[in-house]
Amino acid sequence: MAYDHEITVGWGDCDPAKIAYSGRIPAWALEAIEGWWRAHLDGDGWYQMELDRGFGTPFVHMEMDFRSPITPRHPLVCTVTPVRLGESSISFGVTGGQDGVVCFESLFVCAFVVSGSLETRSVPAEVRLIVEPMLRRLN
Amino acid sequence: MAYDHEITVGWGDCDPAKIAYSGRIPAWALEAIEGWWRAHLDGDGWYQMELDRGFGTPFVHMEMDFRSPITPRHPLVCTVTPVRLGESSISFGVTGGQDGVVCFESLFVCAFVVSGSLETRSVPAEVRLIVEPMLRRLN
Amino acid sequence: MAYDHEITVGWGDCDPAKIAYSGRIPAWALEAIEGWWRAHLDGDGWYQMELDRGFGTPFVHMEMDFRSPITPRHPLVCTVTPVRLGESSISFGVTGGQDGVVCFESLFVCAFVVSGSLETRSVPAEVRLIVEPMLRRLN
Amino acid sequence: MAYDHEITVGWGDCDPAKIAYSGRIPAWALEAIEGWWRAHLDGDGWYQMELDRGFGTPFVHMEMDFRSPITPRHPLVCTVTPVRLGESSISFGVTGGQDGVVCFESLFVCAFVVSGSLETRSVPAEVRLIVEPMLRRLN
Repeated sequence: MAYDHEITVGWGDCDPAKIAYSGRIPAWALEAIEGWWRAHLDGDGWYQMELDRGFGTPFVHMEMDFRSPITPRHPLVCTVTPVRLGESSISFGVTGGQDGVVCFESLFVCAFVVSGSLETRSVPAEVRLIVEPMLRRLN
Repeated sequence: MAYDHEITVGWGDCDPAKIAYSGRIPAWALEAIEGWWRAHLDGDGWYQMELDRGFGTPFVHMEMDFRSPITPRHPLVCTVTPVRLGESSISFGVTGGQDGVVCFESLFVCAFVVSGSLETRSVPAEVRLIVEPMLRRLN
Repeated sequence: MAYDHEITVGWGDCDPAKIAYSGRIPAWALEAIEGWWRAHLDGDGWYQMELDRGFGTPFVHMEMDFRSPITPRHPLVCTVTPVRLGESSISFGVTGGQDGVVCFESLFVCAFVVSGSLETRSVPAEVRLIVEPMLRRLN
Repeated sequence: MAYDHEITVGWGDCDPAKIAYSGRIPAWALEAIEGWWRAHLDGDGWYQMELDRGFGTPFVHMEMDFRSPITPRHPLVCTVTPVRLGESSISFGVTGGQDGVVCFESLFVCAFVVSGSLETRSVPAEVRLIVEPMLRRLN
């Protein structure tokens, strides 16, 4: 059920403490969530969702706990799991790990909006169809 | 008491929805927190703290609520306020606003560690001296 | 004539060699060029040029020589000078310095296009009016 | 001989013109060059080269020609080819393409230095061994 998104951590992602700079980590979690959409919408990410499918999913909340430093010594595997579907929102848990160690745990909430606007809308049917079975299996 | 850090939002910070990409926003809040340190430690940011002063302040937790989109139409003012000092940690509230509108509210927790290590240490005296009076005024 | 754009180099911009990561430097030069436009078009950067003024200036060429490492010890001053105006292009020289030392020298060429398209167009009159006197003074 | 490095272009990499922001592209070319090193040094990138192998390869020059816009519609394939080995430098050509169209062509020159210093050194034997046969095949 969970989707694994692998990040190759580079030299330029690390700060003088020789670990990935904290400011880079939220962007990786977002990249993993966009990867989750691609994996479940026939390769369509946020670009195609907004331009072709008529809806966007802007972030309204994020929270992250950093457990262990991230380095280029191992791939960073970001595991993305949808954890809740609201009337017009979706929540994802993202856990980042390296070499079997949990590096961060995080939660992200996105609203569904009409493309090119900030007007919220209900969850698109195509999304509900994909996510509801996943949530049933979670419970 | 509060420290204001101004960000100039650029074209490259915006996504095709014509607003700042969410993945960029946590990095701006961190940039504002580093600015807070510079403003209170004689111009020293994280680089000088780590290399010259012997301590680092890695992030252990962050949470952000996104209230309103950010665009290049106005400067983004990030207001940084220390809100708690623990045995070996410090917490900052960061509020981002544009043209009088709150764009995001956020909270960040940092641990104090010995430079070049992950070993936590107590709050450095020079930091306690600066932050405690601020917290007293908050209460 | 020249426009100076100051960058505050942060901890997160530096790599484990304790200097700014090379991959960050071109983005700073671009940020400085966008600052040049703001300084000369009543505060309008690329966002307002594209959305309000009807033209864009995509990059078609860049070249950079890196002379000396960049650190957070001093501000990075990027000096931007328009050096050529073609039929439908503009070239900028950007020199980056810290504490009196040249860190990089660079050249950027941008095409003028109609907003929302890749169709090149002649230099907008408002731009020609600003840049031609600068070029005359260069020669 | 050439090494192909695939970049997944995301929503957050694109600007309001709906194409990848130019400031992001040099960083992708660098990421591809670091991938080349990993592919040829048993998985070691710049981090391991600096920390474990005792040498660094800072950039001294880059030049890029942007031929065609980059979008999230297709993967961006960056083809990296070493094109010259000097006494203490190496040059790479990097061509970026999407769906058979050339998006950028570029050249990068790196110096070899002793880790933790700016002192140049001759090409490490392990690198010469890998690169010289590639250059012979080029000619």
